[in-house]
Amino acid sequence: MNFNMTDDQQAFADVAKQFAMQELAPFAAQWDREHTFPVETIRKAGELGFCGLYTPESEGGLGLSRLDSSIIFEQLAMGCTTTTAMLTIHNMATWMIASWGTDAVKAQWLPGLVTGEQLASYCLTEPGAGSDAASLSTKAEKTDAGYRLNGSKVFISGAGETDVLVVMARTSNDGAKGISSFVVPANAPGIIYGKAEEKMGWNAQPTRMITFDNVEVSHESLLGEHGQGFTFAMKGLDGGRINIATCSIGTAQQALDTARDYMLERKQFGKPLATFQALQFKLADMNTELVAARQLVRMAAAKLDEDDPQKTAYCAMAKRFATDVGFNVCNEALQIHGGYGYIKEYPLERHMRDVRVHQILEGTNEIMRLIISRQVLQEGSQLL
Amino acid sequence: MNFNMTDDQQAFADVAKQFAMQELAPFAAQWDREHTFPVETIRKAGELGFCGLYTPESEGGLGLSRLDSSIIFEQLAMGCTTTTAMLTIHNMATWMIASWGTDAVKAQWLPGLVTGEQLASYCLTEPGAGSDAASLSTKAEKTDAGYRLNGSKVFISGAGETDVLVVMARTSNDGAKGISSFVVPANAPGIIYGKAEEKMGWNAQPTRMITFDNVEVSHESLLGEHGQGFTFAMKGLDGGRINIATCSIGTAQQALDTARDYMLERKQFGKPLATFQALQFKLADMNTELVAARQLVRMAAAKLDEDDPQKTAYCAMAKRFATDVGFNVCNEALQIHGGYGYIKEYPLERHMRDVRVHQILEGTNEIMRLIISRQVLQEGSQLL
Amino acid sequence: MNFNMTDDQQAFADVAKQFAMQELAPFAAQWDREHTFPVETIRKAGELGFCGLYTPESEGGLGLSRLDSSIIFEQLAMGCTTTTAMLTIHNMATWMIASWGTDAVKAQWLPGLVTGEQLASYCLTEPGAGSDAASLSTKAEKTDAGYRLNGSKVFISGAGETDVLVVMARTSNDGAKGISSFVVPANAPGIIYGKAEEKMGWNAQPTRMITFDNVEVSHESLLGEHGQGFTFAMKGLDGGRINIATCSIGTAQQALDTARDYMLERKQFGKPLATFQALQFKLADMNTELVAARQLVRMAAAKLDEDDPQKTAYCAMAKRFATDVGFNVCNEALQIHGGYGYIKEYPLERHMRDVRVHQILEGTNEIMRLIISRQVLQEGSQLL
Amino acid sequence: MNFNMTDDQQAFADVAKQFAMQELAPFAAQWDREHTFPVETIRKAGELGFCGLYTPESEGGLGLSRLDSSIIFEQLAMGCTTTTAMLTIHNMATWMIASWGTDAVKAQWLPGLVTGEQLASYCLTEPGAGSDAASLSTKAEKTDAGYRLNGSKVFISGAGETDVLVVMARTSNDGAKGISSFVVPANAPGIIYGKAEEKMGWNAQPTRMITFDNVEVSHESLLGEHGQGFTFAMKGLDGGRINIATCSIGTAQQALDTARDYMLERKQFGKPLATFQALQFKLADMNTELVAARQLVRMAAAKLDEDDPQKTAYCAMAKRFATDVGFNVCNEALQIHGGYGYIKEYPLERHMRDVRVHQILEGTNEIMRLIISRQVLQEGSQLL
Repeated sequence: MNFNMTDDQQAFADVAKQFAMQELAPFAAQWDREHTFPVETIRKAGELGFCGLYTPESEGGLGLSRLDSSIIFEQLAMGCTTTTAMLTIHNMATWMIASWGTDAVKAQWLPGLVTGEQLASYCLTEPGAGSDAASLSTKAEKTDAGYRLNGSKVFISGAGETDVLVVMARTSNDGAKGISSFVVPANAPGIIYGKAEEKMGWNAQPTRMITFDNVEVSHESLLGEHGQGFTFAMKGLDGGRINIATCSIGTAQQALDTARDYMLERKQFGKPLATFQALQFKLADMNTELVAARQLVRMAAAKLDEDDPQKTAYCAMAKRFATDVGFNVCNEALQIHGGYGYIKEYPLERHMRDVRVHQILEGTNEIMRLIISRQVLQEGSQLL
Repeated sequence: MNFNMTDDQQAFADVAKQFAMQELAPFAAQWDREHTFPVETIRKAGELGFCGLYTPESEGGLGLSRLDSSIIFEQLAMGCTTTTAMLTIHNMATWMIASWGTDAVKAQWLPGLVTGEQLASYCLTEPGAGSDAASLSTKAEKTDAGYRLNGSKVFISGAGETDVLVVMARTSNDGAKGISSFVVPANAPGIIYGKAEEKMGWNAQPTRMITFDNVEVSHESLLGEHGQGFTFAMKGLDGGRINIATCSIGTAQQALDTARDYMLERKQFGKPLATFQALQFKLADMNTELVAARQLVRMAAAKLDEDDPQKTAYCAMAKRFATDVGFNVCNEALQIHGGYGYIKEYPLERHMRDVRVHQILEGTNEIMRLIISRQVLQEGSQLL
Repeated sequence: MNFNMTDDQQAFADVAKQFAMQELAPFAAQWDREHTFPVETIRKAGELGFCGLYTPESEGGLGLSRLDSSIIFEQLAMGCTTTTAMLTIHNMATWMIASWGTDAVKAQWLPGLVTGEQLASYCLTEPGAGSDAASLSTKAEKTDAGYRLNGSKVFISGAGETDVLVVMARTSNDGAKGISSFVVPANAPGIIYGKAEEKMGWNAQPTRMITFDNVEVSHESLLGEHGQGFTFAMKGLDGGRINIATCSIGTAQQALDTARDYMLERKQFGKPLATFQALQFKLADMNTELVAARQLVRMAAAKLDEDDPQKTAYCAMAKRFATDVGFNVCNEALQIHGGYGYIKEYPLERHMRDVRVHQILEGTNEIMRLIISRQVLQEGSQLL
Repeated sequence: MNFNMTDDQQAFADVAKQFAMQELAPFAAQWDREHTFPVETIRKAGELGFCGLYTPESEGGLGLSRLDSSIIFEQLAMGCTTTTAMLTIHNMATWMIASWGTDAVKAQWLPGLVTGEQLASYCLTEPGAGSDAASLSTKAEKTDAGYRLNGSKVFISGAGETDVLVVMARTSNDGAKGISSFVVPANAPGIIYGKAEEKMGWNAQPTRMITFDNVEVSHESLLGEHGQGFTFAMKGLDGGRINIATCSIGTAQQALDTARDYMLERKQFGKPLATFQALQFKLADMNTELVAARQLVRMAAAKLDEDDPQKTAYCAMAKRFATDVGFNVCNEALQIHGGYGYIKEYPLERHMRDVRVHQILEGTNEIMRLIISRQVLQEGSQLL
């Protein structure tokens, strides 16, 4: 066992940290306020390889592990939660295309995606089926030229601003086995984008409904085989949960650091807040839980890298625990700031609004508990 | 002991509920989005007597108890948290003027205030002294004509839109005993309003810094006697804490009702959410804690009405517990809504943003714990 | 609304407090250590009327309300949790006999029960049916002379030391409607008492399995009508939950008072524990939650007294909340005592062991959540 | 980074598991009930090397790392919490003698200690100074022949049954710098053992006060140099905290496994408990927190092995988090068992009683928060 970063990991973290502090942190509040989607900044991240972190080197990515990627995303999230979350979604979609795309599709999209010149959205969730992915109703009918898509997707990050969509759609009525996965140009005729949702946070990325009205795609746009879509979605979710958990960890660390510095500076009753024992204890607990959460995320990422048979349960644990801890740490950091925590001049309320959705996304934390309990209650199972 | 409302209390509650549902609830989301201060609506509330609930009848108010007022404010908060909170602040300032104002000041301001034609702000908090009221540095120097005020106040609700300010200022260097209280016309020369703070919530009321630059007020503007300001502020806070706790209770009840209805309607995995045991248990706990919190608030209000020697500790308990429970209930109600809880189309995220500040205002919940512990550790004390 | 005790209630509380401090508190540790069932002490309590608190005056009881009784039990629990819990069970069984017993049965048992000369046990729970009362399998077959009982009951408080048993048994296979209630002499032939269970706490009362092997009882031993047993059991549980919640409140108040005194005396790092802010805050939270819990218990007791249609849900809320708070307060009070909290020389570890079972008894707190959620999810329901 | 055990670690774990299941688990309930100190069993553990796990090989120990030792202790604690805790104390004292003992002392004691033929107690805590080690008042005066010890120690595990004591005593009035460390034969004239403390748990080991009444020890009995005792004590505590945290992890895992199996077997309302979603979620949370806690303990152990400059803070984090999680998991596992969790026929209540003291020992969890907050508030510090 070894809990230290390798030199390579440290080097990646340093680059990511520098990027976060120079390119993300100074603008994050403004992007939030003005609902700016910082496409140019994402492209700059792409120049550093951050748009294809775990896409194989053979496909133009950095070929890093999920654990390495988590180390990098954590640093980025310290600069801007929302932009980093968008980056992780783009990374996931890019990795899916690289993993299961036809040569034609890979040739068409990967060069732009791994460099960040083009961006990808991921289209899974539907209005009637939040956490119940197997009940998707968006249809993909076989046609002579390929497939015709009809249906709606909701809560699609980046929608309207990205270039390509990875879409889960039903090719047969066979439940989870009837779902297939498609790569769809974002400007294909028949794609209708809804209005940008007004959200509590995550304002530096647009979220829209997408309606597919007789959208025609080619044969080559199918990822893998017919009926593999649900499997791909589930594989994607394991990594997606590590990523979103990581975004909570990074944001919470930033909130913790900010609260700590505030405690050292701000005086009440003639003494720095840092001298009040109840606040000291609060800070100690925030830090303890955050260290535990980070370890759990990294352990789950390693399980995913090793293709551990229980990896899905560990990823669910990491997502549940880290996003809950992340929210609590941000919320307590806000409280430590008193009234200043509540106003937008300080970053605390934004941190809290941004990480709140992590407890819901990629399967709510209630769904995580279902996944974990199914594993632990399975015959012969033990999650250590 | 009796835990039921009287017929009069029920009647007041019914009127307040109707007002809340007709005049507040339909507009609350829009006021939040557009940062509207609904002055006209507050005036309508004034027509029902809600601007002078516990101002004595002799001064034009309804002369109700704090407990009665809490029952009314709770219903109003179910319609709009922020507007109700502003109303409670106006009620407090109006009551202060009615209680300790000179005849001249009362004659000048009360008729407008109790009807809601004019509105009042309360100016206690200063930049350097969040929770430490005794360390105020705003100065009121005696002049021939009255007093000259210099200094700054922050986080002033309604500032820039109200007509009169109740201001705590230092008339001598004698710590808490050197603070006096003044009634100041909001448009007095030398008053400078800062920009409207951008806040996480409470957007239906403006919050600004106010700077007093050689503001001259008359002799008659002094409330009570020299040096009584801190005592007035503390008395105000007891009631203010009941009020803000009440706003949390009302909002949380609204969030709970919304979540319950959603659970009955929304299906996942082919069944209503209401059939999932883990959500049932969550709802049960939310409801249980909310009932306990409401009882504690009402009990503390009764202690205040009775002038119980331990009233300050009970009010602090009520504020601490009800605002924490209120936040948790709103936060869980958001979670029950999944992704829909995070978007502004639904009221949950607004409820959560609005009640969040109640854990900070009127003394942070950390200060509440200080107050409670001081009482319980006092010789011979027991808080039952 | 009124949150104060009447003079009568205060007088009862004073008598109970005196009894608790003189007759219970000095011996409670010894009873726990030596597993003594203090029958003589219970008789002394009977002399004060504490064995028939809510038994009607016409039947020899004090005819008090459940709220009055809760006030008394709370004081008693401050002296000895376990003895008070046994008293509450005896009171419940006595009240059942008084409410639904035949004249013969009432004449035979009530004079002894209301004075405490005789004691009663309550036999509901069975080995296979912890929280699922409707699935009872103990049988009562009709015979010429009355009924013949066969089956087993577990976790019966007082078993082996009491004089009469109130037994729930099945008279038909009609689910909950097939259950009837019987008054059975504790020494009837065929009753076999198991060994005294070794328990974590509640050591001042024996708990045993009881097996009924062809136990014959008379016609007159039936309470009420055939098939009413489940209804009686449910009515009994409403009050039983108030009682057990009350035992948690009283014990927790005792633990809180002890911890407070310890904080004032015990020094660490040269200063009393009472000067450490983190401990002050802990104490404040303990006290706040305890006050809220007490109010909720009293409110639920009042609902029961008023026969409120939602009384069962309120009693479930009170039981869930007060027993959880009670445990937490005792547990924190133990922690405040450090190593001394863990040894039997101090009462803290006993308090904690004793109240732990309250979260399980009379329906586990999980069952409470079921009951509450069923009510709140019912059409048109609202628990305020 | 690597979160998997090496083959060697797995082999050690397997041996420890086998020992725990064969030699500890079958007897743990009886030892608890009868307050047996299983000296013979500890000796058998010694035969496997478990009495000198991290004592250097050169001194007869296994020379393992703290991380390796934690893996072994975790398995042992699954068999008997208390015996394992005693073993960890013995290991610590043995390691201290091996690290800083004079040749004479090492030759005299180590051969017996590393094999478990002789046992050691550790004497730090004093009546007046629970968590405040620097204020010790036990005195060691220099004499011609060595030192003369006077004073009292409390809560000494194994006292009265062990062969040698490592004693912290004051050799000068220079605060923490005036404390030295001594190896004292347990049967030295002048040593008076108090009665065995009656405790909530940890009954398989005696705990006594020890009074030193003019106890004479040789020059060679001094560990290291004059004034190094506090340093040694602090070093010992880092490891002691890992050990005690580990005992909580192992016990909690055992409780979790037991609860899981019970959920699969026990039926209520006609279905296994495992089918109730609220219990599934509870189990999922228990498991998640336990995995996070184990990772934190192992990470802190690795920091200790690496002599990381922030090791003390990480060890404090591990102790705080793991002992809190351990208690909660045991407590919830008890609750899942309902009434059966409360009786001694099942192991749950014992697990809960045993781990409860871990939140107090080796510095209370409040002291842990102090240690952590001091580190995180230090200039330039960051605990990741």
